[in-house]
Amino acid sequence: METIHVDVKNVLNTVSLDTINSLDAKAASAMEKLHNGTGAGNDFLGWLNLPSSTTAEVLDEIEQAAAVLRANCEYVVCIGIGGSYLGAKAVIEALSDSFAAYKPAKGPKVLFAGQNIGEDYLYELQSLLKDKKFGIIVISKSGTTTEPAIAFRILKEMLEKQAGKAEAAKLTIAITDAKKGALRTLATEEGYKTFVIPDNVGGRFSVLTPVGLLPIAVAGLDIKQLVAGAAAMETATATDDNIAITYAKTRNALYQAGKKIEILVNYNPKLHYVSEWWKQLYGESEGKEHKGIFPASVDNSTDLHSMGQWIQDGERSIFETVISVAKQQHETIIPTDDANLDGLNFLAGKHVDEVNKMAELGTTIAHVDGDVPNIHITIPALTEFWLGQLLYFFEKACGVSGYILGVNPFNQPGVEAYKRNMFALLDKPGYEAESKAIREKINK
Amino acid sequence: METIHVDVKNVLNTVSLDTINSLDAKAASAMEKLHNGTGAGNDFLGWLNLPSSTTAEVLDEIEQAAAVLRANCEYVVCIGIGGSYLGAKAVIEALSDSFAAYKPAKGPKVLFAGQNIGEDYLYELQSLLKDKKFGIIVISKSGTTTEPAIAFRILKEMLEKQAGKAEAAKLTIAITDAKKGALRTLATEEGYKTFVIPDNVGGRFSVLTPVGLLPIAVAGLDIKQLVAGAAAMETATATDDNIAITYAKTRNALYQAGKKIEILVNYNPKLHYVSEWWKQLYGESEGKEHKGIFPASVDNSTDLHSMGQWIQDGERSIFETVISVAKQQHETIIPTDDANLDGLNFLAGKHVDEVNKMAELGTTIAHVDGDVPNIHITIPALTEFWLGQLLYFFEKACGVSGYILGVNPFNQPGVEAYKRNMFALLDKPGYEAESKAIREKINK
Repeated sequence: METIHVDVKNVLNTVSLDTINSLDAKAASAMEKLHNGTGAGNDFLGWLNLPSSTTAEVLDEIEQAAAVLRANCEYVVCIGIGGSYLGAKAVIEALSDSFAAYKPAKGPKVLFAGQNIGEDYLYELQSLLKDKKFGIIVISKSGTTTEPAIAFRILKEMLEKQAGKAEAAKLTIAITDAKKGALRTLATEEGYKTFVIPDNVGGRFSVLTPVGLLPIAVAGLDIKQLVAGAAAMETATATDDNIAITYAKTRNALYQAGKKIEILVNYNPKLHYVSEWWKQLYGESEGKEHKGIFPASVDNSTDLHSMGQWIQDGERSIFETVISVAKQQHETIIPTDDANLDGLNFLAGKHVDEVNKMAELGTTIAHVDGDVPNIHITIPALTEFWLGQLLYFFEKACGVSGYILGVNPFNQPGVEAYKRNMFALLDKPGYEAESKAIREKINK
Repeated sequence: METIHVDVKNVLNTVSLDTINSLDAKAASAMEKLHNGTGAGNDFLGWLNLPSSTTAEVLDEIEQAAAVLRANCEYVVCIGIGGSYLGAKAVIEALSDSFAAYKPAKGPKVLFAGQNIGEDYLYELQSLLKDKKFGIIVISKSGTTTEPAIAFRILKEMLEKQAGKAEAAKLTIAITDAKKGALRTLATEEGYKTFVIPDNVGGRFSVLTPVGLLPIAVAGLDIKQLVAGAAAMETATATDDNIAITYAKTRNALYQAGKKIEILVNYNPKLHYVSEWWKQLYGESEGKEHKGIFPASVDNSTDLHSMGQWIQDGERSIFETVISVAKQQHETIIPTDDANLDGLNFLAGKHVDEVNKMAELGTTIAHVDGDVPNIHITIPALTEFWLGQLLYFFEKACGVSGYILGVNPFNQPGVEAYKRNMFALLDKPGYEAESKAIREKINK
């Protein structure tokens, strides 16, 4: 089975192979914790065997539900935040036309809401959807998370007014807890089609559950190939020595050597949201107990003309992980120009991507020469299959990496702090003591 | 004159006012270097008095040129990279409808190219522009920067084929050097309308030259108000004690105290590209001589559900600078729901932005409690005038901050390193020795 490729030779100026391999015992222990469920957070390991245990029947059911929305909607609004937003967004952006928003399409356009608390955003979304045929996918374990709950209240009311209550119910799909919670109760009352968020899969690991798969299918993408790619990577990373372990060990060795910031680099703007998804995956898994690599990202060559200077010459506290896409989907050749005023005729006849690849290689050499270690990940092409491999690769490596670091990679206790303050400030029922305390604190 | 507001009280747990004010002498020296042109990089200070010296006639000429494109184009492709991309992109995104791409518009839609080397990107752009009426703004000091030069070759050829050579020349505007360079020569030959990039304004400080103003005007925005806002801030920051100095001193004090990463935070997704513009401004100005704050950014509340955990509980090496927009443009009220399954009725009747503001305040309190110092910038609304103030504020503060840090804030020597390698790898004429050397290095 061919897999994506990981190359760490360009870190060896900073950390030797011996240093990296000194983490072998910790990595083996991490793998054992994952595979046997003996580590911290072991009630959230459902993602581990998800690809291989997702049956064709499950995928068929998702595709059938997607087909209903595709047949009846001009727009489908996907309501969710965090892991209930970034996975679907990442895959759809990576595999869609760069100018899809401006072009006619065979199916509905997938939009997102409930990932912010934007008053103008919601106003402008409603102005777009007015008198349009639209559907809703609402994703929330509890149904009470503030951002998606507000967006769903507003859009549910709008859809029912425009399409009627019965039709609105047919065009709304809820992805939520199997049994409990506000959204499950509502879905039962309203008769929505539903899918389940498994109890043992955390938000940032949920892209291969219906949370990610349904919006991706609505966008017209091949979820069977996506899951097949992930399943191939599940097999490839079940062994004692594999690319997920290599990545996990190398980034921890770099962190121990003082490289505190990891910059995920792409040379293809379609991967922008894969980087955002990755930031949540690693930032939320490792940023705890006052430790963890700070995850950042750049889209090159664009950002060579913004962050490039800092990366080349700023504090030597960074390393880069490059995702390089070997083959493009389309062909654009640089034309000849007789006048050659721009001096580009030495490139005439070349594919644009040949120049891009030399920008990438030239940058890697310049950065490594400038004491920025470089991990290189090659994916053969931007397709569902290879993206499925990439997503699972990062998930598996994240579990290993978090255990090597010595944290529970599957909780996120720090996310609650702002919510408690927000509820206190908004006088949410049940927060009376907190409301009083926070006002005293502010007025002090 | 009312200005945007800067509040540093929430950094005082980390650095005292005395510590901040211990930088007074350095700040005064920095101001003197800027105003008298006596510091490093003093041949690039043209941005300093740009707002007050931009006449109504200059702005009229830009608006007239924009009107030609607005009257004759469905799309206008703005070709540029770095500072010839991010300023216009930042202002247009901040002041446009969130779903503008999907909606009919009075004028052309402004697209961007030449800010990457994307083979699929250029293919998909051409497929959109096929048989459409489009125009081009090409921005390049030299006309030979690789990314925009490739995009312009391809789109110039396409436009000439579709519209004819004479019409294509009328629909192409070049922004370039006053006298020399490939693009100036070509513009003269082809009879393009042109605007000048001043010699003494670097790319990242160029948003208030025609580089930024022309695309912004083509998007239908009010460039006179933008410049008026910047001029107001030019006046406000010419004094001995002002908000630009406050911001510059505070971030340097935090950096000296070990806060190595500055996260620019917004609670309005329209500000995403203002953050990208800011990253170039500060990263490229300060990231040199192995020093400088690492600039990062988040869009909240979205990213509270991705980077929020790291910010709350990761390494205590960060501080935040929040841009808070006081007033929204539109009104969206949270509806009442009789069943109240989601428990949101305590918010019913409130503006969505009231919740957003409490998310912001609750987050600030949680982060400050968690040892993340917080600088708070308030802008009254997202309008041309206030955005003009904000942009100039960041520029002025950047000049002061760079001099306090002890670097030349106006050069970018590190950006050349990857270009030299790329040209060598692509066998560009004149790089024969470098080509031989880099191949030997790779094959070693």
